[in-house]
Amino acid sequence: MSTTEAKLDRTKLKWFGAGAVCVVLFAFAVMSCGKRPTAAELGGAAEAATSTYVAPGDTDEYYLFYSGGHSGNVYVAGVPSMRHISTIPVFAAYPATGYGFDEESKKMLGGFGWGDVHHPAISETNGDYDGRWLFVNDNANNRLARIDLRDFKTKQILGPIPNISGYHGGSFVTPNTEYVLAASRFSVPLPKGTVEPLEEYATKYNGVVAGVKVDPKTGEMSHGFQILMPPFNFDLGDAGKGPSEGWAFWTSYNTERATGKLEVTSTQKDRDYIAAVNWKEVEKAVAAGKAKMISGVPVLDPKEVPGLVYLIPCSKSPHGVDVSPDGKYFIGSGKLQSITTAFNVEKMLTAIQKKDFSGNEDGIPVLTYDSVKDAEVNVGLGPLHTQFDSEGNAYTSLFVESAVAKWKLGSWEVLDKIPVTYNIGHLCTAEGDTVNPDGKYLVALNKLSHGRHLNVGPSQPESSQLINIGGEKMKMLYEAFTEPEPHYAQLIKADKLKPIEVYPKEENKNPNAIWDVKDAGVVRNGTNVTVKMVAVRSSFEPYKIEVNKGDTVTIYITNIEQTTDELHGFGLNEHNLNVVIDPGETKTIKFVADKPGVFPFYCTNFCSALHQEMQGYLLVKGGGSALAMK
Amino acid sequence: MSTTEAKLDRTKLKWFGAGAVCVVLFAFAVMSCGKRPTAAELGGAAEAATSTYVAPGDTDEYYLFYSGGHSGNVYVAGVPSMRHISTIPVFAAYPATGYGFDEESKKMLGGFGWGDVHHPAISETNGDYDGRWLFVNDNANNRLARIDLRDFKTKQILGPIPNISGYHGGSFVTPNTEYVLAASRFSVPLPKGTVEPLEEYATKYNGVVAGVKVDPKTGEMSHGFQILMPPFNFDLGDAGKGPSEGWAFWTSYNTERATGKLEVTSTQKDRDYIAAVNWKEVEKAVAAGKAKMISGVPVLDPKEVPGLVYLIPCSKSPHGVDVSPDGKYFIGSGKLQSITTAFNVEKMLTAIQKKDFSGNEDGIPVLTYDSVKDAEVNVGLGPLHTQFDSEGNAYTSLFVESAVAKWKLGSWEVLDKIPVTYNIGHLCTAEGDTVNPDGKYLVALNKLSHGRHLNVGPSQPESSQLINIGGEKMKMLYEAFTEPEPHYAQLIKADKLKPIEVYPKEENKNPNAIWDVKDAGVVRNGTNVTVKMVAVRSSFEPYKIEVNKGDTVTIYITNIEQTTDELHGFGLNEHNLNVVIDPGETKTIKFVADKPGVFPFYCTNFCSALHQEMQGYLLVKGGGSALAMK
Repeated sequence: MSTTEAKLDRTKLKWFGAGAVCVVLFAFAVMSCGKRPTAAELGGAAEAATSTYVAPGDTDEYYLFYSGGHSGNVYVAGVPSMRHISTIPVFAAYPATGYGFDEESKKMLGGFGWGDVHHPAISETNGDYDGRWLFVNDNANNRLARIDLRDFKTKQILGPIPNISGYHGGSFVTPNTEYVLAASRFSVPLPKGTVEPLEEYATKYNGVVAGVKVDPKTGEMSHGFQILMPPFNFDLGDAGKGPSEGWAFWTSYNTERATGKLEVTSTQKDRDYIAAVNWKEVEKAVAAGKAKMISGVPVLDPKEVPGLVYLIPCSKSPHGVDVSPDGKYFIGSGKLQSITTAFNVEKMLTAIQKKDFSGNEDGIPVLTYDSVKDAEVNVGLGPLHTQFDSEGNAYTSLFVESAVAKWKLGSWEVLDKIPVTYNIGHLCTAEGDTVNPDGKYLVALNKLSHGRHLNVGPSQPESSQLINIGGEKMKMLYEAFTEPEPHYAQLIKADKLKPIEVYPKEENKNPNAIWDVKDAGVVRNGTNVTVKMVAVRSSFEPYKIEVNKGDTVTIYITNIEQTTDELHGFGLNEHNLNVVIDPGETKTIKFVADKPGVFPFYCTNFCSALHQEMQGYLLVKGGGSALAMK
Repeated sequence: MSTTEAKLDRTKLKWFGAGAVCVVLFAFAVMSCGKRPTAAELGGAAEAATSTYVAPGDTDEYYLFYSGGHSGNVYVAGVPSMRHISTIPVFAAYPATGYGFDEESKKMLGGFGWGDVHHPAISETNGDYDGRWLFVNDNANNRLARIDLRDFKTKQILGPIPNISGYHGGSFVTPNTEYVLAASRFSVPLPKGTVEPLEEYATKYNGVVAGVKVDPKTGEMSHGFQILMPPFNFDLGDAGKGPSEGWAFWTSYNTERATGKLEVTSTQKDRDYIAAVNWKEVEKAVAAGKAKMISGVPVLDPKEVPGLVYLIPCSKSPHGVDVSPDGKYFIGSGKLQSITTAFNVEKMLTAIQKKDFSGNEDGIPVLTYDSVKDAEVNVGLGPLHTQFDSEGNAYTSLFVESAVAKWKLGSWEVLDKIPVTYNIGHLCTAEGDTVNPDGKYLVALNKLSHGRHLNVGPSQPESSQLINIGGEKMKMLYEAFTEPEPHYAQLIKADKLKPIEVYPKEENKNPNAIWDVKDAGVVRNGTNVTVKMVAVRSSFEPYKIEVNKGDTVTIYITNIEQTTDELHGFGLNEHNLNVVIDPGETKTIKFVADKPGVFPFYCTNFCSALHQEMQGYLLVKGGGSALAMK
């Protein structure tokens, strides 16, 4: 970009900035008046009704995996019905499934009672969803979790990840799930535990962008690499594919390196940056011993190891950077802007080769904006995030305008726009992150919902709107609600997943599993009492457990059923203990019997006609023994 | 009932019992083959689609309040769309709303991380839903919670309630919400803490039926009265109304007083009992000093105070006892039976007056079955629970048959039957517990759901089916899914509730609330650090908190917004702290700053265009101060 052009751009952007603020205020004013399109205004309500209706007994075409934000959960819905089907607990205990109550899941949670789930990512093979795992990042406690889509259960939680604070810039996967991207939204002095004055933020705080390594066979996650960055706020990311395979991209805001009231201090500059990391070169640099270990993770400093990371100027305060299905473009959207920029990967590579730089940040080269951009697409106000269909179209969420713009990759023509309500954040199209998107459906994930549903008091849910993108014009189909707070979602064709419903007996490797009521019983060793228990329709064996006050009691419960939906629960009265044992599963409960008395336990999860009769008693001796009236 | 009749009945019942077992096995076999009615078989799919479709921006007609079972939550859906709208956390922490993380809600939860929500009950005035409160009982930890329907928040948790173990027999309200019914599903030696051998269960363990008192102005719950009962398992209840006002009814099973494998030992007798309690007489007896205090609650012993409680023989292993809208009948359904019994309140009162008893249990008179029953209605296999419409019809769930039977009160004619899938437990009709049910809709709460939805692994949701009961024949409309495990639900007309969306500033009586950023700040007193904080679009004030390692930090956060849906969250990185502060609310967070370092905090709940910029830093001094590489 020449100096003159830059000046013009800055002037335009300033005016735009002022305009954007007015529009924001206007949009909020409009929202407050409560006007909303009626069914008639929307048109085709009957068509929308029949095309989203899934008759009792029929199933949906797509799974929608919603991030559950600070609920710590992932929500599963069906599309096109948009019906909530299931909740997968990840970073928070969930007694409905007993998650966080048995020893195994308690250990995985590591003492944390919540997380802030942001961006679900289905694992990929050759750039296509392979339906094996779903990764979700935790913005609150800097963790990454892996859900196995074979049984829809959380299998591993990695973290808190050293050196990363505010793990927002994930979980985006490389085309063969070699890495899940990670980044620091909040810069801190490193290593963690160090304190530096906030006044020296610009020089003594650091950002990090990183790749978490995934074992291709098991999905086991481990600390991969990290790159030390200036103290920007790294926001969202995406992995390259095809011609851009081997690259990872992240947006950043607060490139002002400001503190305080960021809404003012971090919106001073006209442009922020996209960081482009060549992770294949990073791998080589780590192998060549060029990384330093910080808190157990190999960290590369771009000042010392050049050629790994470049910065590309981007519209002010960007959110999404999204790689097109063919891997040729990455789309950068600044939320305080009315254009979105399509950057060209080939041009980026040429600019790097030619050292076509317009500056640097802490030694990291800044590529010349005009040399890398292919087009500025006039999508509308507040572009945030872009997804794609099968016909070479892109769909960009317009946060300020509360709309979705459809535009053409290559011709850069805006083809259609549809209003959504209100304040869309992310959007997702069917298989929209893959090399082969399906088109057909788009889900708009809207951040506010007031007036869209029956009033449920001050704590309002979020709104999601299902849009038909199968035709030339987008058509509004349905509106559903979900818990706070879907930041992103992914849509995968139902037939790509084949979950099991029963854990095969032969797969249960728990040494304390038992499969016959004859093996059930209570064994005492000093003050340690071990119970091996069977749960099967419709009783527990043993149904009586006698212990002394102060004993440490460990119960291994095996649900010996091999029939689908035959779950059993084990709830212990006035103790904080409830686990749910799926067919073929063994779970471990451990507690100190510190209260004398007689405590019933019972099956909490419906199992049969005689479920209500499935109960037993824990007798904790050491209290009184008469019906004393006082 | 004469001896000959009784013998005949017993013979019939034995054959029936054997038949029922075969039917159960057959039903499970049918279920396993996966056959289900298609949309075409159901007929009228297009009509069902349009009649359940709620276009974007339109709202539902009814609120459906589902019990969330061992999730500890209440779920809110809209009818007819059956869309999930909101989750109300009650007995379990829920980081999505910050419930269980601030000092106020943490205290209310009392250290418990779960509960087993069973039967929601909307408060009533003159036998009609008044839309003020929703009560839910906790079968696991013997508690009762009150949700305020003004803001959909849990306001009080009473318990664990002394002397009650397995609080299943609630929460059913008397016609002016004088009491919420309570009962022991599991008998234990009393007072709690006492241990008696399980072998002496029949004589040394006790059941309890009870009324929890509700303050008519504030809804404040307190221990009302309790009645000492034989060690039966008390199951479900209902309150009388009209001619039966002043009476409370509970079913009981295991009147064999058995232990061990209850599925066998507690199903020996041909009949179990309904307990009928005259709570107005109970009030007089308590006032007359006839109660003994056990663990702080006035308990009446029917052996010593006659005239309070009567037993009525009922079909084997009953679940529901349901009072008709006019209060003339109570319907008792035994799940191992093919008939449901309509008992006549007038006949009951006559039998009591005439001492028409067929025996007694621990001194409690057993009324003669034939003197109290009006009709045995041949509804079908496995009747569980009955609800009503506006036309004098009753609807009984048939657990074994997986169907709903519609039948006429008075003529006792079965008018219609509709299959549901699978294994319906409770059902609910629109305002079906009131003196004026609406008819129109019925929701079948089905206990199993396999094959009805996209496969989500072994932990399957429950299924609910919406049925149109507005016409002569019932019509299947829709199927939705919810978390484990709805035991009961209630449907209330949407216009009966007028929840607030913002807490008016003038209602905030928290002495630590502040409404101006000028009043925000940090005050140290020894090692206690108190922060008064304002959250407002889009910053925290103060945005920097500096403390020393080991300090006890208390933060009072006020969200000074007075605009709907303008929630703010406060999440503290790598600490276990997240609260959500609704507009006009003040919340308290307390923690010991035991880890040195710099910890970002940020707004977790979307609030504005500059939400992403709403952040600050906690600096905990006492660690290192250099970027040490190791």
